[in-house]
Amino acid sequence: MNILADGSSGGAVLTGGNRIVVLVIALIAVAALGVAFLLVRQVLAADAGTPAMRRIAAAVQEGANAYLARQFRTLAVFATGAFFLLMLLPADNWSQRLGRSLFFLVGAAFSAATGYLGMWLAVRANVRVASVARGVTDGQERSAQRGAMRIAFRTGGVVGMCTVGLGLLGATVVVLVYRADAPRVLEGFGFGAALLAMFMRVGGGIFTKAADVGADLVGKVEQGIPEDDPRNAATIADNVGDNVGDCAGMAADLFESYAVTLVAALVLGRAVFGDAGLVLPLIVPGIGVLTAVLGIVAVAPRERDRGGMTAINRGFFLSAAVSLVLVAVAAFTVLPSGFGSLRHVPSAIAAHRGDPRLFALFAVLIGIVLAVLIQQLTGYFTETSRRPVRDVGRSSLTGPATVVLSGVSLGLESAVYSAALIGAAVYGCYLLAGGSIVLALFAVALAGTGLLTTVGVIVAMDTFGPVSDNAQGIAEMSGEVAGAGARVLTELDAVGNTTKAITKGIAIATAVLAATALFGSFTDAIGEAVTSAGGTAVIGSPAGLSLDISQPNNLVGLLLGAAVVFLFSGLAVSAVSRSAGSVVFEVRRQFRDHPGIMDGSETPEYGKVVDICTRDALRELATPGLLAVLAPIAVGFGLGVGALGSYLAGAIGAGTLMAVFLANSGGAWDNAKKLVEDGAHGGKGSEAHAATVIGDTVGDPFKDTAGPAINPLLKVMNLVSLLIAPAIVRFSYGAHASAGLRGAIAAVAVLLVVGAVYASKRRTVDVAGQAPAGSAVTAEAGG
Amino acid sequence: MNILADGSSGGAVLTGGNRIVVLVIALIAVAALGVAFLLVRQVLAADAGTPAMRRIAAAVQEGANAYLARQFRTLAVFATGAFFLLMLLPADNWSQRLGRSLFFLVGAAFSAATGYLGMWLAVRANVRVASVARGVTDGQERSAQRGAMRIAFRTGGVVGMCTVGLGLLGATVVVLVYRADAPRVLEGFGFGAALLAMFMRVGGGIFTKAADVGADLVGKVEQGIPEDDPRNAATIADNVGDNVGDCAGMAADLFESYAVTLVAALVLGRAVFGDAGLVLPLIVPGIGVLTAVLGIVAVAPRERDRGGMTAINRGFFLSAAVSLVLVAVAAFTVLPSGFGSLRHVPSAIAAHRGDPRLFALFAVLIGIVLAVLIQQLTGYFTETSRRPVRDVGRSSLTGPATVVLSGVSLGLESAVYSAALIGAAVYGCYLLAGGSIVLALFAVALAGTGLLTTVGVIVAMDTFGPVSDNAQGIAEMSGEVAGAGARVLTELDAVGNTTKAITKGIAIATAVLAATALFGSFTDAIGEAVTSAGGTAVIGSPAGLSLDISQPNNLVGLLLGAAVVFLFSGLAVSAVSRSAGSVVFEVRRQFRDHPGIMDGSETPEYGKVVDICTRDALRELATPGLLAVLAPIAVGFGLGVGALGSYLAGAIGAGTLMAVFLANSGGAWDNAKKLVEDGAHGGKGSEAHAATVIGDTVGDPFKDTAGPAINPLLKVMNLVSLLIAPAIVRFSYGAHASAGLRGAIAAVAVLLVVGAVYASKRRTVDVAGQAPAGSAVTAEAGG
Repeated sequence: MNILADGSSGGAVLTGGNRIVVLVIALIAVAALGVAFLLVRQVLAADAGTPAMRRIAAAVQEGANAYLARQFRTLAVFATGAFFLLMLLPADNWSQRLGRSLFFLVGAAFSAATGYLGMWLAVRANVRVASVARGVTDGQERSAQRGAMRIAFRTGGVVGMCTVGLGLLGATVVVLVYRADAPRVLEGFGFGAALLAMFMRVGGGIFTKAADVGADLVGKVEQGIPEDDPRNAATIADNVGDNVGDCAGMAADLFESYAVTLVAALVLGRAVFGDAGLVLPLIVPGIGVLTAVLGIVAVAPRERDRGGMTAINRGFFLSAAVSLVLVAVAAFTVLPSGFGSLRHVPSAIAAHRGDPRLFALFAVLIGIVLAVLIQQLTGYFTETSRRPVRDVGRSSLTGPATVVLSGVSLGLESAVYSAALIGAAVYGCYLLAGGSIVLALFAVALAGTGLLTTVGVIVAMDTFGPVSDNAQGIAEMSGEVAGAGARVLTELDAVGNTTKAITKGIAIATAVLAATALFGSFTDAIGEAVTSAGGTAVIGSPAGLSLDISQPNNLVGLLLGAAVVFLFSGLAVSAVSRSAGSVVFEVRRQFRDHPGIMDGSETPEYGKVVDICTRDALRELATPGLLAVLAPIAVGFGLGVGALGSYLAGAIGAGTLMAVFLANSGGAWDNAKKLVEDGAHGGKGSEAHAATVIGDTVGDPFKDTAGPAINPLLKVMNLVSLLIAPAIVRFSYGAHASAGLRGAIAAVAVLLVVGAVYASKRRTVDVAGQAPAGSAVTAEAGG
Repeated sequence: MNILADGSSGGAVLTGGNRIVVLVIALIAVAALGVAFLLVRQVLAADAGTPAMRRIAAAVQEGANAYLARQFRTLAVFATGAFFLLMLLPADNWSQRLGRSLFFLVGAAFSAATGYLGMWLAVRANVRVASVARGVTDGQERSAQRGAMRIAFRTGGVVGMCTVGLGLLGATVVVLVYRADAPRVLEGFGFGAALLAMFMRVGGGIFTKAADVGADLVGKVEQGIPEDDPRNAATIADNVGDNVGDCAGMAADLFESYAVTLVAALVLGRAVFGDAGLVLPLIVPGIGVLTAVLGIVAVAPRERDRGGMTAINRGFFLSAAVSLVLVAVAAFTVLPSGFGSLRHVPSAIAAHRGDPRLFALFAVLIGIVLAVLIQQLTGYFTETSRRPVRDVGRSSLTGPATVVLSGVSLGLESAVYSAALIGAAVYGCYLLAGGSIVLALFAVALAGTGLLTTVGVIVAMDTFGPVSDNAQGIAEMSGEVAGAGARVLTELDAVGNTTKAITKGIAIATAVLAATALFGSFTDAIGEAVTSAGGTAVIGSPAGLSLDISQPNNLVGLLLGAAVVFLFSGLAVSAVSRSAGSVVFEVRRQFRDHPGIMDGSETPEYGKVVDICTRDALRELATPGLLAVLAPIAVGFGLGVGALGSYLAGAIGAGTLMAVFLANSGGAWDNAKKLVEDGAHGGKGSEAHAATVIGDTVGDPFKDTAGPAINPLLKVMNLVSLLIAPAIVRFSYGAHASAGLRGAIAAVAVLLVVGAVYASKRRTVDVAGQAPAGSAVTAEAGG
């Protein structure tokens, strides 16, 4: 049965049994899409609410559709440009070159489709969840909660199934069609997915938080009206934002995490593990599809569940445990007992003592355990019932400054524990490989695919957040849900905050594992390119090629990599501040020009705020996007591949910590606010509440714009580096060497980045100018 | 004249001309101490104020003395422990072993002495500055400002002179006495300076910000009384804090920066540059002493100066320019025209083509230019007259949340520019060395000494900040300075905020340069230890020794290094939050139990708050301190020297950015508040003012506790690693190899860190319990 063992099929790639395994996995991928279709029908079958609710939902749908349509038009331009630029990069043959560009588009399209579908269904599920809460009386909360959770979680399930289905389908097709050329084509596929996801994350993140922060600042803080009050002109935009940011952006992002981890595992697997390296990384997520279905079904909440997280945890743990068992079965079925028996395996690996079955099993186990631990850890730091959030809540007694400070220190510390867990996982893979670095990297990649077996449930958990948030918004705006029903939705919303933070934790863990594995591909690409450029250098010899971190040039690369994470975060936060400023001025203007809004006799112009957010988000996403693509180009061509490698390492180090810091502080502030709203420390309307609202507002761009965008950022930078590494080496060594060309490319990249950053700074002035002439605001702002 | 060229003196170390040069530099160091003495007399000669002022100043002096005395007693225990632990570490002979431990104590004592002197003089200068402002009428502001600046800046000058005098004296004595053994003894000297400075920075930082934040929260926010109002029980503690944190802590920190940079340059210089490497790094700061005197004299403010920064800039640029000219003269005097002519130079360097005179000159030039650029950049981001602070000020119109967000994004972005500048400097050194890595590292070390030529003026600038801050406090509390005089002091305080931010920028730049150079020593130490352990390995061969960053084990090290920076920052911030909480409860209690305080009929018990701050600061400094020392031990013994190297690199990358981020956001918030207090956006008492006060409070622990402590943190971790590297290698290879012992050491280190962190978390509960039983606060806090 050991189909990956060396058999009779000779030197050809992916023949016989292997081919059949991959085909079966492709069918599983298609089946996942089928499950998604069934879940869609279940969600849509639920009651779609009262006419008032439908009207609001329709406005949200319209706004979200309009934004995504405009965003896709903008991104199509970027994608077309990237399509042709990719053609220019070195490749062994035209099939690779064309396949890479083509599958770049496929990756981008899949990423966009997953995001669009997430949004499409979420804007239909929200009103249905709100409808469940309608007319709930005291005592019925538990059953209403179960009903609401079922819809919200199934919506997430659709996105989860699409993510794994499309990701696995793309990867299997590339492996089946391109075989030996598959690694290079996969790079294109992963890059497309990551690039599009990053733009959707950044754009959607700016949209959602500009609307949210703007709405809160004028509504809650200045006018003292509740969140989602229909008199606030920014409420529809806020709800649209949840869908384009937290649904569409997040779905695209998780698709990208999934695709890139697969790509990393396959590219590296092919290089170090022979044929088995092309099949193993597909088997594990194939199993994940099956267990994800199981997990999503298991989340059906039960009578005796204590809180929303109980059902979710059940689904998560069940799918993790079953995955592990099935992986063990698969490993012992398809793998031989010695590395030497693997088909087409390089001789260095073949000589390795040890059992490849146990190696694969433990690597996957590390990934699954990591997912479980991160889930627990993030839950600890962001759940309202645990001590950290309670401490942040209590700090509200000494005012907003201490709320901000306690959230910051909580975020900083929690990031460390996540980083330590991820580090332990990577180190476990290193120990597992018994001294072989390439094998260690492949173990890291396999751990990544292990982590991915839980991704179906994770995505479902995440989509849960914005859907329940939106449901609460629609319920509040329609005025048709009160008392017990409102409490049900508030509790769901708090659960959603935690699931969102957990998803971010898992996403960043996949990013680190994928990026670490891609490092192997990177080193491999450099070595290959040096040989083909006519150089005799192996990595480590000339200063410019060595990845030795004690070399000053490499330390500079590392510093720049960490710096890009800071710059990217700073740009994202300031983009939200700027756009929120525009929203504030517009909402204030409406309150001032239309005094009837406050007493309910006039309806605010919701559409105007949606338009402002759309325009600002699309304008602001360019700078961080360009930074992510151009910074590695500038470093690589300017300082060499050694510095580029350290640059990636620096970005991974700083990015991991920054992403978790931003996600967890934001999540904790949000839930500390919920805690006070539930009656702690004086409840709604108290000074403590005002303090936590300020904390929450600070956390909004942290957790929903800057933080989550770091995940695709790391992948985009790694993939750009992987794609350009051969070109850099070609311009540095041998017959093609041209320092002038290298310098020119680096200079153009630097100039474009600096120009984009400078242009985004210029926009600050406009905000004050946007207030209508002669108004009090202008005079005030000019002061 | 080329005294560093190979002459007749044979193989002995430091003979003839070299010896004389070092002796002359030692004399210059003593002369610097003489200048400090003269400046002290000038400061003390000024008028010491009215009796009311003197009374307040005496209370501050008493509190500061009491704190430092207790702190030194606590640290003496640590130092004694470290003295004996150092004895256990490997060394070539007993002279090295004893010298290292002995000079560890000397370094610690010098660091403590510099800090103590800074505090001692500052608490005498503050009242004298306040006295100058007394009775100033409109129109006299300019001349009063000049008088006040003269005292404040001379006070700083004393600290500057002591820093360079003691630093240079220590280093020259070690070189003269220990010669060939000097590198190892210097490691002890640097470690002593860094360790003590870190504790003083952390302890002083917690003290000062606990008092400041606590005073602001109750005073400004709750009771609506002005800053430094005598009715606030925390005001004296706040002023004490400025002296023990910003004066003593900062002075010790800058002494440490100075000493460690010298140590790095000398250790590396001896290894790669022969005798010249022991002399050159002393000549450059020797020149710096002379030009610092010039710079301090040049700051004498003139009639036509526009603002406080004009005079300071003049002193800074003058000393930088003259330093450069003198370094050029010295380089062409003492160095030969070819590397081969250098005395005792290793053959790899001797073969290097190029002119060592130009090499040294350009390396120093890079350091000086870096100092100038960082000074300008930091000024741009934190001066009230420049756009970034104005933008933060304007964001106060939309409330505290936007103030916090704009400060965060400003800080994140400004960190990137600083990191890019530092990176460019290091890369410049790399290019200068023309492909030789060791030469590049020595160039980095020389650039560090170049940067240090400006340190005299920099220290003077920094001390300027707390002295003027204190002067304002004394003036306010005594009630004897009003109108024009108060305006003079407010303006001085704003200048002080900028100079403090600049000093932090420069300090972190020196930290990066010193740490980069120490990397060279680290690699060298590993190679030497491997050889003596009987291993044949050169760096790069076995996985555990390689510093190749693409290896998963090293990437884990990097991640942990970045994580420690985040953890350290988080711990520092939460220590301040906790201690500030105790202060808040105490001040509230006094207001409640003694209603007479508010109407002025009762005097608050200032001493109680000072005691609380003292107790809390000393208790809280242990956790971050242990973390800094034990984390490298855990990583090094647990994961190996390769991972330890990457750990240091990760810490440098994340630490640079985090330190600048924290310093610049904090500085910008503080000055944005000043901007509003000067009348912008509604002035004092407006909602915009309340928003900026919140921003300032958030920024307090950022800029004065966590941020500045990162600088000594990086150095302590680098020096610990350098000291333990031979022991790790010994336990890993050859005859002494013992995996069990390695693991045990790592486990103990991990347990101690985890225990300390856990213990500090437990303290949160105490804060609520500290409020007197049955009070409203307890009930409220327990809610």
